[in-house]
Amino acid sequence: MTNAAGSPPRPAASHAGTAGSAELAAAVIAGDRRAVARAISVVEREAPESAALIGALFPRTGRAQVVGLTGAPGVGKSTLANRLTAVWRSAGRTVGVLAIDPTSPFSGGAILGDRIRMQDHVSDDGVFVRSMATRGQLGGLARATYDALVVLDAAGCEVVLIETVGVGQAEVDIARTADVSLVVTVPGGGDDVQAIKAGIMEIADVFVVNKADREGADRVVADIKGMLALRDARPDAPQPEVVRTSAATGEGIEELAAEVARFVADRGHGGERARSRARARLEAIVAERVAAAISASGSIDAIVDAVASRALDPYAAAERLMRHVAKQSGC
Amino acid sequence: MTNAAGSPPRPAASHAGTAGSAELAAAVIAGDRRAVARAISVVEREAPESAALIGALFPRTGRAQVVGLTGAPGVGKSTLANRLTAVWRSAGRTVGVLAIDPTSPFSGGAILGDRIRMQDHVSDDGVFVRSMATRGQLGGLARATYDALVVLDAAGCEVVLIETVGVGQAEVDIARTADVSLVVTVPGGGDDVQAIKAGIMEIADVFVVNKADREGADRVVADIKGMLALRDARPDAPQPEVVRTSAATGEGIEELAAEVARFVADRGHGGERARSRARARLEAIVAERVAAAISASGSIDAIVDAVASRALDPYAAAERLMRHVAKQSGC
Repeated sequence: MTNAAGSPPRPAASHAGTAGSAELAAAVIAGDRRAVARAISVVEREAPESAALIGALFPRTGRAQVVGLTGAPGVGKSTLANRLTAVWRSAGRTVGVLAIDPTSPFSGGAILGDRIRMQDHVSDDGVFVRSMATRGQLGGLARATYDALVVLDAAGCEVVLIETVGVGQAEVDIARTADVSLVVTVPGGGDDVQAIKAGIMEIADVFVVNKADREGADRVVADIKGMLALRDARPDAPQPEVVRTSAATGEGIEELAAEVARFVADRGHGGERARSRARARLEAIVAERVAAAISASGSIDAIVDAVASRALDPYAAAERLMRHVAKQSGC
Repeated sequence: MTNAAGSPPRPAASHAGTAGSAELAAAVIAGDRRAVARAISVVEREAPESAALIGALFPRTGRAQVVGLTGAPGVGKSTLANRLTAVWRSAGRTVGVLAIDPTSPFSGGAILGDRIRMQDHVSDDGVFVRSMATRGQLGGLARATYDALVVLDAAGCEVVLIETVGVGQAEVDIARTADVSLVVTVPGGGDDVQAIKAGIMEIADVFVVNKADREGADRVVADIKGMLALRDARPDAPQPEVVRTSAATGEGIEELAAEVARFVADRGHGGERARSRARARLEAIVAERVAAAISASGSIDAIVDAVASRALDPYAAAERLMRHVAKQSGC
């Protein structure tokens, strides 16, 4: 991960937090892998520290193409990510991978299965893989993911692939804000198309039928096309393509990469998606700040007790909390 | 769904919103099914209208036992819900079902498969089934689900079963706040135990291995027990039971219902779970209010544009939005 910026000047430390952030930002922009890892840890851990860092990195962003990869556990997302990365690397593009699928082998949630399928790229400086493990405060996962995207973009990643399970509001929001959003399914079990639910259908720019050498692949492709024909598409909206792949053998991966490139070229990188991403990012930061303000408010426990004992109804209680939040927001 | 309250007095309409809410609340408390359906629509649609209604219903709640039912699409959650409902009904208990699984046949997300597996209970006044379709504003799904729980509880439901996919923060939060949380898995595919991810393990009070007549059930049970033995359990925490079921044949369902009853009896209904639920409910309301305040703020579009064009970094932009929220919270 190298950048045109080269080795940036290092300002003398004046205020620890800000100076530290400026140094870290400079190292990230220079493409230093350890700095990238550290910066993502910073944004994962805590919003206040992130602010100065993201502020310093943000003007250097906007180049990365963001590719969403969404599908149920077991459809082969990580193998696909591995294969797509190989295609992009062979074209000389640097790649970042953010895994926010809690069942992904990358994010350490997998109990069985290959833990590190991306090991093909482990010694490649042009690939940076990171799992987003944040589970906690409201908005934390989405906010940390958007911030990690800023870090990778500023570090010079030309493609950032974000892997999500696609169930849950945060995950769907993240997928929706990608420049191109791939939804993966597999044949088998009879529950296959059921797993492509209404909410997921809507975010798909390209459908991927993986493990397409399995029996039933034709039916899945036909089912998806049938659903697409039925849905109330705007005439100006491009109909999503359905691409068959076998991530295990590599079949169809070149076609998928070509389809991704075509979609981004047609739609233009940035534009409406960039605005959605900016909006989602703002909402995530605000949500996390509000949650922090609530936690910091000394009265939360007493208010919770009052609600649990039914002395206070939840909406009246929320009004009280909102006033606390307002006070802590500098009113 | 009948209640001891009988037919309540109807106050003369003075202020449309409040009077309407009071009438609707009274009808809900009287166990009127159409009122219950309407009340859930109200809470699903909009928070401001909900506040008066929930305020009126809330003092009448606290009786319902909340049972979480979590698992990946295709594990048979809806068939299990159907079977468990039959057991509870045969014991004379009234049952509410809230499906917030977007792939559930109840919530209209399923493309194939039985659309209405709960049809066994469709003519039974002691059962109320409702899907939560809300997908939109941050916090909307969780807030609406907690409010719907208040409606069903106030209407006299003795058991409320909440069906979730269990991926995504809102879903996990909801499952965590149930009085007893069932996590369902099935044998088959090799990805079975992988689908029980770290986050889900932690919320399970009882594991259900469904489709236990399939090959590989023994291995799944052994894998779950192995994971439980490995994890860092507090000595005072009861180790979750693993129950085998075949929802299709009904095998193991009585045992599962007994295990649920035993768990709730041991832990006590309410207590810490009720406090968690109160806290989660508050956070969801506040999150939704903040999102609404942001949307209502006229400046959001200009701020989003500034972020999208990189004129303003996201944290600086969030500060501005927070000040707007603070102003609208009555500062």
